[in-house]
Formats: sequence, structure tokens, C-alpha cells
Amino acid sequence: MSSRNVQRKPPTIRDVAALAGVSMSTVSRVLNGSAAVSGDAAERVRRAVDQLDFVLSASARTVRPGVRSMTWGLLVDAVESHYFSTLIAELDRAAQEHGSTLLVSVTQKEWVREKHLIKEMSSRRVDGLFVVPANGDVLGERARMSGVPIVYVDRIPSGVVADVVTFDYYRAMAELVEGLWARGHRRIAFIGGEVDTDPGSRRFAAWNDILSRHGTTADPGLVSVGHLVADTATEAAVTMLRSDQPPTAVVTTTGLLLLGVLHGIVLEGADVEVVCSEEIDAAFLSPVPLTLVAADLGLLVSNAVELLTAQIDKSSDGPPETRLLPTGQIHYDAVTSLRASPQ
Amino acid sequence: MSSRNVQRKPPTIRDVAALAGVSMSTVSRVLNGSAAVSGDAAERVRRAVDQLDFVLSASARTVRPGVRSMTWGLLVDAVESHYFSTLIAELDRAAQEHGSTLLVSVTQKEWVREKHLIKEMSSRRVDGLFVVPANGDVLGERARMSGVPIVYVDRIPSGVVADVVTFDYYRAMAELVEGLWARGHRRIAFIGGEVDTDPGSRRFAAWNDILSRHGTTADPGLVSVGHLVADTATEAAVTMLRSDQPPTAVVTTTGLLLLGVLHGIVLEGADVEVVCSEEIDAAFLSPVPLTLVAADLGLLVSNAVELLTAQIDKSSDGPPETRLLPTGQIHYDAVTSLRASPQ
Repeated sequence: MSSRNVQRKPPTIRDVAALAGVSMSTVSRVLNGSAAVSGDAAERVRRAVDQLDFVLSASARTVRPGVRSMTWGLLVDAVESHYFSTLIAELDRAAQEHGSTLLVSVTQKEWVREKHLIKEMSSRRVDGLFVVPANGDVLGERARMSGVPIVYVDRIPSGVVADVVTFDYYRAMAELVEGLWARGHRRIAFIGGEVDTDPGSRRFAAWNDILSRHGTTADPGLVSVGHLVADTATEAAVTMLRSDQPPTAVVTTTGLLLLGVLHGIVLEGADVEVVCSEEIDAAFLSPVPLTLVAADLGLLVSNAVELLTAQIDKSSDGPPETRLLPTGQIHYDAVTSLRASPQ
Repeated sequence: MSSRNVQRKPPTIRDVAALAGVSMSTVSRVLNGSAAVSGDAAERVRRAVDQLDFVLSASARTVRPGVRSMTWGLLVDAVESHYFSTLIAELDRAAQEHGSTLLVSVTQKEWVREKHLIKEMSSRRVDGLFVVPANGDVLGERARMSGVPIVYVDRIPSGVVADVVTFDYYRAMAELVEGLWARGHRRIAFIGGEVDTDPGSRRFAAWNDILSRHGTTADPGLVSVGHLVADTATEAAVTMLRSDQPPTAVVTTTGLLLLGVLHGIVLEGADVEVVCSEEIDAAFLSPVPLTLVAADLGLLVSNAVELLTAQIDKSSDGPPETRLLPTGQIHYDAVTSLRASPQ
């Protein structure tokens, strides 16, 4: 028996109505999420739908404007990070609690992809979208996007005033750098991603501001930014660690770059302290003291869901909000040697 | 200016036709992916669509059966693993190369969610679905799913004969265990996930078979399975390492459980060799010798896309195929101490 060759006449809304013992319009109301059906009838319809493996086509479902599709969309850069994968898991849980399905798509951090996917998701009549905004909207097109409710998450988008939920990355970085300074570090390196877009810009500003506050500025040899992959961060760390005046501490920004920096430290056998604005799963394996910013993604999601449902329900008339959530810190001691050094 | 408050009359297909200088039916043909439009006219339509931020509603797009939506769906357990996040990235790239959009949803490895999401995606008229099959289809409902082309990936689904692309996990595990045996290990522990469903069942069978081939069987104290989270794998590793007869090597199955096992090894300061059927990003930080199965997810994706497009195009009349792809191995030496032990 092959799933490819199964040819069965698909059940119709008429079959569902007959099995549930209700009218076709009642079936339609239940499937379109209307509340104006008694719980008992709605339950019978759902059982019949299940029994018949009935599928309501998107076209049938969405002919009437204002009807909910019970679907949320999420656009993220990529899914290859602890941060984004945790965000998806938390948002999926929240969607389920709201009786909605979450559809995820990947922008690869490109504005043209974000724009295309917002249109795609709109055409599939999602009730609303969570968007981690990409870069590159140089024409300010984002501000002209209309129709579907959107809450931006994690990053503050350029060129639009809209609902945004992000963490207070400026303060989080300021606290990391102040901590290093208090522990006596004076040669502090910064190995980061893009610093001209959010949230890299907030993190880089905080680093510079804390150094200024202590009456100093960064040694240009200890600053390396614009990294998009781990390998180049590894190279930057190795170059700094081999220099005449190596850093005693390294500040880095994302989980991906942290892994790259730790790789460089392992290759050089260096003894430096590291801090990072994001968590990684493998932090307990760090060969050097490591302090990470702990961001509660459950909190981010509950705030974002609150703002999106307010937009969908039109229950708020206020201006768009930007919410900056607080963060914590987690410290990991260096893993001590499990075996004698080879020499 | 608020994205929430923007109220603009959305452009219609008539506006697009006027701007592109073509008929409305030409616009419709282009947007529905028909090839029967000259390249020049198609290009003008696409430019007009872009200029007007025109969105073709799903209902308008899908009224005619047989019309492509240029969308693929992917259902995965979760996205919190190196394996799944790499799979999503590779499939997203492939979708883009085929001019399609990828929509991802999470099953949480539950059959009821898989069933619901297949219906949801079908109702949104995806052209086809890639499904990492969940467990729990005890009634054999999967075999009765019809309508949308499906290729199962990574796991062999129960209860259905269908197109499947997975790695040869039996052989991969057999090679890992043979390697440990050849390096002199005789007390080999197994800390794994579910072993009664695919691919855990293939891995566990390989482990047992290789021990049998060497005339021995597993010490029950060195077998701990059914782990779903890293923490319980950590506990299992700690218990084994503290026992009178600790293992000299540990076999584990997923990246998540590998992190748990390494955590236990760090806590106990134990010196054991570890092997695992999946890769992790942080393998270079391993404090003990580590051998991982290297699976080329680009290869998995190209095979899966080939099978799905054959189903969509109805270009194959053969029976469903199960493809078992080969794997490699990567070895990591233990990270040597960066600093003297505290004592």
C-alpha cells in the first residue's frame, strides 16, 4: 500500500455535516473559528472532521474577511543558533496554548526575503506575524507594509514605528564589561558581528561607553567586528592572542561567535576570560571562565503574544510599543583538566 | 507613523495588469506559475507586483486544482538540535533554488500534532511536504493520509509504505562500536533515547549485534535508554562512572544526549572515550576523545527534493523508495588542559 497511490474521494463539508448531525453552515462556522456554536455541536463537528480526515481548503476557509485562520507566522534569520531555536520552541508552545498553529520561515537576514515572506504569509491569511527583522530595507518599504498584524521581536527594525519586544542588550553588555573591569581586566578585546544594525549597535555602544566612563578607549588591535561565521571569529581570536600585547579578556556577542572565539582559545592554549551576550548549550565545557547573558525567551514570547493578540483583536488603540526586557547573567568556571597534559 | 494604523486600499490584480500593460488573465497565469507567458511579459508582471506590493490571496491562487503554490512544507520534531537546524537550513536553500518558499512547523514528535499539521499544510495547498515522522500512529492512520505528496526524512515511518530518505544509522553505529572494540574497550556503555522506534531501534540493534559478534552481551548496568533530555543522560553517566565497574567508553545517540553525557563526564572528572551518532557544534571543546558520525544533510536534502518533485510532477510511476545514505566519521582529540588543576 503506497501513500503515493492512494486515490480516495476526499470527504466534503456535506459528509462532515451528515456525520455530525448538524447543518453545513454549522460545520462552516465551527471550522472558521466562530464562537456562535454550542460546545456540544462544535465537539461533534470536530469528531466528525477527525473521523473523516476532512481538510478544509484554505480557499474555503478564508473567503470571508475577518475570519480567523488560527495560524501565526514567525520569520527568523536562521534556525542554527541556541537563541532562535529556543525562540521557536517557546513560540510554538504559546501558539498551541492559544489554539493556533505556528508556521516558521527563514529570512537569511535579508530584507528582500523578509518582504517576500511577509507577502507569502499574508496571502495564506495568517492572523499575525512575529518578525525578527532583517537588514537592508534602505527604501523604507517596511513602513508601507500593511494588512497583517506584525510584532517585531529581538531586534528593533529600521524605518518603522511598530510593536517591538527585545531585551535590554545595551544594559546587558554594559554589565558584562563593568564586571570584567571590576575583576581587573584592562586589555579587553571585542570580537563581534555587525555593529551598524540592531542589536549589535546597542552592544558595541555599551562597550565603548563603559571604556569611556573609565577614561580609556579601545586598542584598535583588540577590536574585530563584522563577523558572520564562527571561523573568522576564530582567526580574529588567534591573531589577537598571538600579538605582543594580547588581551586578558574577550567580549563577544552571539553564541555562534562565542564558539568561534573558544575554538581560537583552545588552539592557542590561552588563558583569558570570556563574556558573551548570548547563551550556548555547551557552556559547561568552556576551558576558560565564561560569563553569559541569560535572556528569558519565555518572557519575550509572552510579551510578543500579548502585543500581537491586541493587534489581532483590535483591543488596543494606543501607539505602538517598544518593550526592553531585563536580562540576567550566568557564570561558568573553567573545566579543569581531566587528564595530565601530554608533555 | 505606525504599521498598525496604516490603512491603504490594497492593490488589485487589475492594478497589476494596468501597470504591466498586460491582460488580467496574463497576470493570473504568471502568478499561478504557468509557463505559457513570454519571459518579457512575465518579467513586467513581476516588476509591477513588486512595485505595488501586490499580494495574491491564497484563495485566488488556489481556486484551480493542479496549480502550483510554489510552497513546500517541512514538519520536524523540534528545532533545538544541530541536526534539525542544519536540515532546515539546507532545505530552505534547496527550496529557494527551486523558486519555492519553505514553511516549517514543529510536531514535538507527537503523531496527533503531525496529523493536524499535515491537514493544516494541505489546506494551505503546499505542493508537497517533507516530514520527519513522529511516533504514536498506533491506528495506522498515516497510511490513509492522502492528497498531498509526502517524503519522509531521517526516520522510517511506521505503518506506511512511502518515499523515505534516511541515513544508514545501523551501519554508522556498527562502525562506531567496532572502532571502540578495536581500540581495546570491553566495558562499553550505551546511553540513548527511545530504542523501540526508528532510528533509535536501528542504532540499538547495531550495538547489540556488534557485541554479539564478539561473543559478549551488554552489562545491564551499562545500558540506559529512553532519555529525552540532556539532564537524565547526565545522571545516567554519573551513576555509571561512580559504579564499581565503570565503563571505559560511552556510546550515545543524539547531540542532545551527547551534551548530557559530556556534562556527567566533566562533573566526575572521568577519563572515558565517547562516540555519538550525531554531530554537535561544540565537539572541539570535548574534554575526552570523541568520535562522531558525520551525516551530509545536503545529500539527504537533494535526495528528498528529487523524490518530492517526482511525486509533484507525477514523473515517476515506480513504487515508493527507501534510500539509506552513507555516513562518515569525525574524530576529535581531547582538549588538553589550558591551566594547571586547582590543587
